[in-house]
Amino acid sequence: MFIAGRGMNSTFSKVLVAGQWRPSRATNSIQASNPITGETIPEQFPVSPREDILDSLEAGAKAAAELAQADDDAIARFLEVCAAGIETRAAELVDLAHAETGLPKAPRLKDVELPRTTDQLRQAARVARDGSWREPIKDDARKIYSVRGPLGGPVVVMGPNNFPYAYNGVGGGDFAAAIVARNPVIAKANPGHPGTTRLFAEIALDAARQSRLPLAIVQLLYHFSNEDGFALVSHPLVGATAFTGSRDAGLKLKGAADAAGKPVYLEMSSINPVVLLPGALRERTDQIANDFFSSCTAAAGQMCTCPGLILLPAGELGQTFLAAARKKFEAAEPGVLLGRGVLERLVKSVAALRDNGAELICGGQPLPGPALRFANTLLTVTAEKFLQHPLALQTEAFGPASLLVFCRDTDEMAAVVTNTTGNLTGSLYLSNAGADDAAYAVLEPLLRTRVGRLLNNKMPTGVAVSPAMNHGGPYPSTGHAGYTAVGLPASVRRFTALYCYDNVPAQRLPRCLQTTS
Amino acid sequence: MFIAGRGMNSTFSKVLVAGQWRPSRATNSIQASNPITGETIPEQFPVSPREDILDSLEAGAKAAAELAQADDDAIARFLEVCAAGIETRAAELVDLAHAETGLPKAPRLKDVELPRTTDQLRQAARVARDGSWREPIKDDARKIYSVRGPLGGPVVVMGPNNFPYAYNGVGGGDFAAAIVARNPVIAKANPGHPGTTRLFAEIALDAARQSRLPLAIVQLLYHFSNEDGFALVSHPLVGATAFTGSRDAGLKLKGAADAAGKPVYLEMSSINPVVLLPGALRERTDQIANDFFSSCTAAAGQMCTCPGLILLPAGELGQTFLAAARKKFEAAEPGVLLGRGVLERLVKSVAALRDNGAELICGGQPLPGPALRFANTLLTVTAEKFLQHPLALQTEAFGPASLLVFCRDTDEMAAVVTNTTGNLTGSLYLSNAGADDAAYAVLEPLLRTRVGRLLNNKMPTGVAVSPAMNHGGPYPSTGHAGYTAVGLPASVRRFTALYCYDNVPAQRLPRCLQTTS
Repeated sequence: MFIAGRGMNSTFSKVLVAGQWRPSRATNSIQASNPITGETIPEQFPVSPREDILDSLEAGAKAAAELAQADDDAIARFLEVCAAGIETRAAELVDLAHAETGLPKAPRLKDVELPRTTDQLRQAARVARDGSWREPIKDDARKIYSVRGPLGGPVVVMGPNNFPYAYNGVGGGDFAAAIVARNPVIAKANPGHPGTTRLFAEIALDAARQSRLPLAIVQLLYHFSNEDGFALVSHPLVGATAFTGSRDAGLKLKGAADAAGKPVYLEMSSINPVVLLPGALRERTDQIANDFFSSCTAAAGQMCTCPGLILLPAGELGQTFLAAARKKFEAAEPGVLLGRGVLERLVKSVAALRDNGAELICGGQPLPGPALRFANTLLTVTAEKFLQHPLALQTEAFGPASLLVFCRDTDEMAAVVTNTTGNLTGSLYLSNAGADDAAYAVLEPLLRTRVGRLLNNKMPTGVAVSPAMNHGGPYPSTGHAGYTAVGLPASVRRFTALYCYDNVPAQRLPRCLQTTS
Repeated sequence: MFIAGRGMNSTFSKVLVAGQWRPSRATNSIQASNPITGETIPEQFPVSPREDILDSLEAGAKAAAELAQADDDAIARFLEVCAAGIETRAAELVDLAHAETGLPKAPRLKDVELPRTTDQLRQAARVARDGSWREPIKDDARKIYSVRGPLGGPVVVMGPNNFPYAYNGVGGGDFAAAIVARNPVIAKANPGHPGTTRLFAEIALDAARQSRLPLAIVQLLYHFSNEDGFALVSHPLVGATAFTGSRDAGLKLKGAADAAGKPVYLEMSSINPVVLLPGALRERTDQIANDFFSSCTAAAGQMCTCPGLILLPAGELGQTFLAAARKKFEAAEPGVLLGRGVLERLVKSVAALRDNGAELICGGQPLPGPALRFANTLLTVTAEKFLQHPLALQTEAFGPASLLVFCRDTDEMAAVVTNTTGNLTGSLYLSNAGADDAAYAVLEPLLRTRVGRLLNNKMPTGVAVSPAMNHGGPYPSTGHAGYTAVGLPASVRRFTALYCYDNVPAQRLPRCLQTTS
């Protein structure tokens, strides 16, 4: 995307505010571009000024009060109609998202991410209907009751570039979770796929009409200045904010929201350490190298759970693994990156890793255009060197790149793990015959408190939409290690307040507390 | 308390660090004073320098790793032995807390707060044993499991002045909740009752020995500079912080912790609005005035849930209520305040309310010493004036003081409620005959999203230790509306991370996940 000069408002796409598609008061616009062809996509999306934001906040606050009183069934139907609407317009969504993001239509947009997104919405509908997100607790003897309830203001959702459907500000996981708890959503489109987001908002507005809910249950702004973003997330009328994106942007939003006492849930960065123990490599180096290659290069490495830091034994075992992995990395054609920003950050990140002592094994540079590609990249460093610059050597290289850390023994592995910051995931590969059990017993507890999801003999990509899933982790992978962005009903909890009722008679309690326990 | 000049280390009480009572490296000390007699209590407590803090962090981090592997039963026994130890030393605890805080021995310290504290510890022990805090979720088909686990670092607990037992940094509710989740505690004593806190720490250290847990499960520092406090709560080795106290101090701690991405749970201030609807006053003005008087002057008004803002009808109904309340407020002898700081802040708060248009009806000034007392105080303001300075007129007057807001109709009440900030509680008194139902229907939803606990026909003081209790509320009453400081197992959740296991075989899962679902 790039910011165009001043234009006529009437040439910009309309924003969705207070139930209406209406002209923004914008004077600037952004446009997406096709990462495969390099061509700019014609549609111009307004950069909303403060007035658009304030209007959406007022409409959102009003909708929040109305949604608090809505029927469970209406909320569920809204989510289901969204899912059905996405299916109805699937062809259009797939064409547009492919043009905006360069992600393959299949296997991916059409047959993986789109069904996942509608499945999430339908799971959310079930949770809205069964009330499990309410977590009711009853103390009949003392006449004290508690349940979870909405926040009293709209939830701002800012989706990432890498999942144009599943994490979209409209229709994605955060959106669905916020709606289940009866909070309206003010979405900010990711600038990588504003058109796809517009389609989702059209579908959601239609669903609001069909389910007779307040139309401001969904509002959409495409873009605004950083300053206006800070004003939004810290505004007294806001309920909370959910953000998925870069650490830089996330930390700035966090600062603004924290200072105002507004909840903010961030998924910011993760390099997902994978520990390869010697027994596992002795048993199945090729298979693990293949797992690693597939996981690291899936979606051109642009997954939150891409394995970006591999701990493995120094010496022959590690070298054999590296050779096997290198062969695959070099042989495969790299995928297309989501945008020029991703490519530029990747160049910088790989340079930062090399500046801090990492040795380039393969890849390491962009490929000739027009498609935005970066060669599949492997870097290595010894544990000793890693421990000299542990933070710099955890720079996230978002893309098909990974750093291998050669460790002389379990103690060095332990030291490296101890120096990792918070991550979404951490994997341990170990011998099936028990040869690595002693090392596992040392390393697992160290890794456990530093990651959200701990895996055995499995690469971290592929986040199942399971009630038991945790797509979260300690700071700075997210803002708080107690929450997950995936997995229902747990993901809903982020957008709730704890409501307690004391001495309130049954007829004045929320319906979910009126049934006998 | 006051800060004494430089003294000999050997004359200061020892701090509890790394399992040892040892001399602090302090050069300054604080002392408590008796709020009834005005006399300084001889014991000198060190103002710990940075080195004490760093030592406690290192020992706490080591203890955190060990506690993660401890038996459920050992954790439970520790909490039970703490409770028994408190009972064994009850006479000593009551004498010392009475001297340090001026709180009555009975009814209060001996027969209310002490049993409540041991009950909390025993409830916590039950939760440690039954594992309900773990919230296990199993997805056997996908081999994904999640549970709550410890944070991986010590929890800093800073208790308030007003509950020397029940919210003490050692032995109080936050302490118990942190321990259930297997986090060691670094307590900072409240400067109002350092001696009481020392006794609790002696009891807890003894309990650690008896239950064969790492002795650094409990550490105690008495005091440190603000800067050192910020360094503590933002330190990489810290798991989280729990603070109960003034908004000023809380917000500064929050700033430091937030900037480092460290969880911080704050209970900071609350004026607990109470709405008296006309039908209720018509039916039972005297009874409600008595409820109000008792609640507002209990513990000399030094409760987090003291009713500090009363909305009531203008005109004769409201005036009759005011006259009834005033009679009680004027007739009763005010209780002793916890310390000179409380008295000074109360003088300032009442002045701020008057400066912003509140009219003083009775009380309003300190009483002659030596005991620290402030006259029972009522102020009034019209809703119209309130709405001109809604924030200033929500200044918390911590003590036996309350502001009555006269409202001409339901609309004015709604406007006042809409302008309240987050509070721990909100009460609505309404007619038993249905006369206030229409007003209730308007006001309840407005109040609901602005408070943690919503009451009917009941004053807010008296926080039952019930699983359904919410002792929390929207910012700025606390830092996050999703958490409660009272009520097990919910209060434990603050001190946990979400642990997910993916493809981890049963024998390597935590014990609580090994049982079949």
